[in-house]
Amino acid sequence: MRRSIATVSLSGSLADKLTAIGGAGFDGVEIFENDLLASDLSPEDVRDRAADLGLAVELYQPFRDFEAVPPDLLAGSLRRAEHKFAVMERLGAKLMLVCSNVSPAAIDDDALAAEQLRLLAERAAEHGIRIAYEALAWGRHVGDYAHAWRIVRMAGHPALGLCLDSFHIAARDVDPYAIRAIPGDKIFFLQLADAPSLPMDVLYWSRHYRCFPGQGDMDVAGLVADVLRTGYDGPLSLEVFNDIFRQAASMRTAQDAMRSLIALEEQVGLRMGGPVAGLTSPPRPVVPTGFAFAEIAAPSAAPLGNLLEALGFVRTGVHAGKPVELWEQGAARVLVNSGSAESPDGPALGAIGLESPDPAASVKRAEALLSPVLPRMRGPHDAPLDAVAAPDGTEVFFCRTARPDHPSWTGDFAADRRGPAAAPGEITHIDHVALTQPWHHFDEASLFYRSVLGLRPHESLELPDPYGLLRSRAVSTEDGGVRVALNVAHVGAHDGSHDTAWQHIALASGDIVATARRFRAAGAPALAIPANYYDDLEARHDLGADRHRLLRELGLLYDRDEHGEFLHFYTETTGRVFFEIVQRIGGYRGYGAVNAPVRLAAQHARPRLRAG
Amino acid sequence: MRRSIATVSLSGSLADKLTAIGGAGFDGVEIFENDLLASDLSPEDVRDRAADLGLAVELYQPFRDFEAVPPDLLAGSLRRAEHKFAVMERLGAKLMLVCSNVSPAAIDDDALAAEQLRLLAERAAEHGIRIAYEALAWGRHVGDYAHAWRIVRMAGHPALGLCLDSFHIAARDVDPYAIRAIPGDKIFFLQLADAPSLPMDVLYWSRHYRCFPGQGDMDVAGLVADVLRTGYDGPLSLEVFNDIFRQAASMRTAQDAMRSLIALEEQVGLRMGGPVAGLTSPPRPVVPTGFAFAEIAAPSAAPLGNLLEALGFVRTGVHAGKPVELWEQGAARVLVNSGSAESPDGPALGAIGLESPDPAASVKRAEALLSPVLPRMRGPHDAPLDAVAAPDGTEVFFCRTARPDHPSWTGDFAADRRGPAAAPGEITHIDHVALTQPWHHFDEASLFYRSVLGLRPHESLELPDPYGLLRSRAVSTEDGGVRVALNVAHVGAHDGSHDTAWQHIALASGDIVATARRFRAAGAPALAIPANYYDDLEARHDLGADRHRLLRELGLLYDRDEHGEFLHFYTETTGRVFFEIVQRIGGYRGYGAVNAPVRLAAQHARPRLRAG
Repeated sequence: MRRSIATVSLSGSLADKLTAIGGAGFDGVEIFENDLLASDLSPEDVRDRAADLGLAVELYQPFRDFEAVPPDLLAGSLRRAEHKFAVMERLGAKLMLVCSNVSPAAIDDDALAAEQLRLLAERAAEHGIRIAYEALAWGRHVGDYAHAWRIVRMAGHPALGLCLDSFHIAARDVDPYAIRAIPGDKIFFLQLADAPSLPMDVLYWSRHYRCFPGQGDMDVAGLVADVLRTGYDGPLSLEVFNDIFRQAASMRTAQDAMRSLIALEEQVGLRMGGPVAGLTSPPRPVVPTGFAFAEIAAPSAAPLGNLLEALGFVRTGVHAGKPVELWEQGAARVLVNSGSAESPDGPALGAIGLESPDPAASVKRAEALLSPVLPRMRGPHDAPLDAVAAPDGTEVFFCRTARPDHPSWTGDFAADRRGPAAAPGEITHIDHVALTQPWHHFDEASLFYRSVLGLRPHESLELPDPYGLLRSRAVSTEDGGVRVALNVAHVGAHDGSHDTAWQHIALASGDIVATARRFRAAGAPALAIPANYYDDLEARHDLGADRHRLLRELGLLYDRDEHGEFLHFYTETTGRVFFEIVQRIGGYRGYGAVNAPVRLAAQHARPRLRAG
Repeated sequence: MRRSIATVSLSGSLADKLTAIGGAGFDGVEIFENDLLASDLSPEDVRDRAADLGLAVELYQPFRDFEAVPPDLLAGSLRRAEHKFAVMERLGAKLMLVCSNVSPAAIDDDALAAEQLRLLAERAAEHGIRIAYEALAWGRHVGDYAHAWRIVRMAGHPALGLCLDSFHIAARDVDPYAIRAIPGDKIFFLQLADAPSLPMDVLYWSRHYRCFPGQGDMDVAGLVADVLRTGYDGPLSLEVFNDIFRQAASMRTAQDAMRSLIALEEQVGLRMGGPVAGLTSPPRPVVPTGFAFAEIAAPSAAPLGNLLEALGFVRTGVHAGKPVELWEQGAARVLVNSGSAESPDGPALGAIGLESPDPAASVKRAEALLSPVLPRMRGPHDAPLDAVAAPDGTEVFFCRTARPDHPSWTGDFAADRRGPAAAPGEITHIDHVALTQPWHHFDEASLFYRSVLGLRPHESLELPDPYGLLRSRAVSTEDGGVRVALNVAHVGAHDGSHDTAWQHIALASGDIVATARRFRAAGAPALAIPANYYDDLEARHDLGADRHRLLRELGLLYDRDEHGEFLHFYTETTGRVFFEIVQRIGGYRGYGAVNAPVRLAAQHARPRLRAG
């Protein structure tokens, strides 16, 4: 299938958009009329530039408010159409999108609509142009594809067909099943967009919140599968109106769009189209099975070492060639890298390691989905360690730790032992990591974790921070072996915004009470939880006086869902990083989101430690 | 009336919020439960701190999902209530807000709701506490105040009354008329919020887009008038959930909230409440009648002078004591101030002068509405010139130019004449100014122009800029003598955002064709409009070949509405500033918004002149 995108989906001038679209490897482009009007490129310049970039001009759009008008308006509309046909000829565009009429002048009369569209198609055909008629979800009389199809069939002109748009179909919850009855050659064009579920008017939702397939909550793949069954062989074309993409860098958005299409084609089971350089069918997702490590870049290793010791970690190794320490407890491993220059705000989470059944295949998939593969900076004797960059810059490594079939990255560390000689700690593994995303790259991040790593997105939550609402969405493997919480400011930041770009590593403890006692006994700084929280907890839950007393004494937070209970506490923040210690009791599935506002307020109240 | 505000309306810690609320001169505060839970102040600390700040704790809120539950849930809810009563006693709060039940467990049974609320009121009364029952617009069974009132009346307990919330009433478009039938002493509390008209689900709208009265589109004053007729004598209390206020500086938001209440009280015809220091009833609005001048701060005066000359302006004066030039044409006056240090990006619009029938009263009103009055920096012989700062920092001066009853500011300028000796120009006056607002102060600006200057807000528009959507809202006097267009980025900016903080001065010409020819003949730089724009204009409007040719030749843009036609063109931008030349033909009322995307694209395409 050819891959196409509408220019309105990207930011910048029309020339910038074409360059970005060509650079991302698309085959074609929809020219959005306003982009042309505002451009100082002539239609001929656009045609030539697109051709140079290997882009077909697939569609000129939109032509509005044409059909089913009183006869006195028709002449003016046809005059308008002739002007547009002339522009299209200069542009080399052979297909014009006509949206269903939204004007109050439109008449509810299918026969009239068909008659006038037939007339338009006749005129178009004289210019070698075809008309793709699309039902806007908010069309005045024609609001779904089945209705548009009745009109197109009634008109019965070879130059008149349908444009289907996944957003309009899903937004009105129209059953896509009837698409199968439409002959594929009467579907002239297919536009694709996704959107998060948001409770608002469909027009407002469409204009501001569309996103690329896989970033929202709609079943775009299901619709595409229905359309392909008809024999449709036109392009898959993305058409997204998104407030944030309008602001973002066009090259990056175009690449994200291409990632979305590749993942969509895979979902639909499409073989890859023609010989597009560098694009091959991605290997199947290699779902990670757990965390191998989390790596913190810190100006100096000692303060973090003290914190880890207080949690029961032992320093088990020092890297042979770099100032990196390995700290272990159970299967939880934390690397402290004091050789990185990239922590202006003090310690920051720079990398995570994921256990992969096949690290090389993991990297190949990431590469096929356009993730930047990181150059390997390792010594001649280091184990192979493959990594890609997540959208927020976090390095994601694919590991096989201590498996006989693969060299283990831990072999690069010279054995060493520093830490408590006392009883081993209760921490068993990394439960999850939480990463604050740049607010204008959240959709991209969500698609990355879903398509590249095969994680499943959970519900979006809103968390009130004292200085603004946060949006939070977790992605995880089915069994919870890998869980990542993605957080983002709900609206954009401004100069005076309080920085909450925190990152945290949540460690699972088999006995959080013991871990909390150990941590306190070491004199380490836990985040102080206000007494008011515990007063409210007693109002909400009757856990018995002893348990309430214990939670209060140790500063533990509490949550429950229908599957089980959740206990957790936090260390204070150093730089951008803090640790959370969690204990899941029963099958609790959440992340303690109900307690996040209390945590955030406590964090803002504390001066941040710049230790490490 | 007492003035109150809910802590949830502001950003920061509970301690910060109280300080801001006290500082803005409120009499009382609603304590939002989550703010208390997340605070390390004990309830007693909060009580003492509020008292120190002169704030009564008017309400503790919200208590959720209580009434009309099956008997087995009631005991747990009462237990929860007893815990909250204990907190309220420590807090010194005597009134608890109970929201109508939204839980699926709630039963649609008014008698049961009344019986359980009566029980709650009995328990509350034992602690000296009263219950204010509020219908949430999205309550499961109780969604409007009339229904809540039936239940309260049925319960018939002296400690049980109503809380009315203007948002819930206006959002569901419930007729407020029936409020007059409620005895004033059964209305225990009145919460106020406004909101812009947005087509979305009421819960989502309420949680994200509320704003202070006068900033949105609801008739809050009408509702307050209805409530006051009942004899209600509790506080007027603001309760606003707003994504942007959550991020903003709390002191500034609190002051904006107070400005909103003062303006609301004036609308309702309330005399001012108790002797709050510094707060007196504002003098009636003194509506400005026109623009006296626009002042541009520029590193050097010469390049701007050349531009003004090309437009037909003449330099008529030089300030006696400062490096400020006065340029005039008809009643259009532009000051070029090369003595200000505040133009790091080159020329910027620093001040506007408005013709006021009574400058001193204008300033008194602005002061009463909490606008910063600017210190007078003038020489001993200068005419009095009064000014306040608008929310975006623009200085707004109140003038009486060349009137016998008042010294004219123009008297401070020594007569001078530099400029074309040729025919006088066609420009008659300043038509409007357009100011880009910081995106997180748009609501504040809208209230400032409305309440302080008495301008009327017009419809909000969305303008697509190549690098993001802009929101634009004009405010004007009834006769259009003063028009200000406020523009703002639709979503927040980010580090990579393209700066579009442009400001412009629109000059009315009686013959724009002559002005355009004069400008071109002087070799001055007009903003180039793409040929594609004119191709489209011919498709949209049939103006005759000659007129289309003239528009294209002179780079004029065109619009029409049902009242008339609009012709305009732009100069290139220097620093942050450009000029627009406009001609209104017939009674055209708009601002040529349909052409703004073409203008914005052309501006981004041009390297900005740093001249001046």
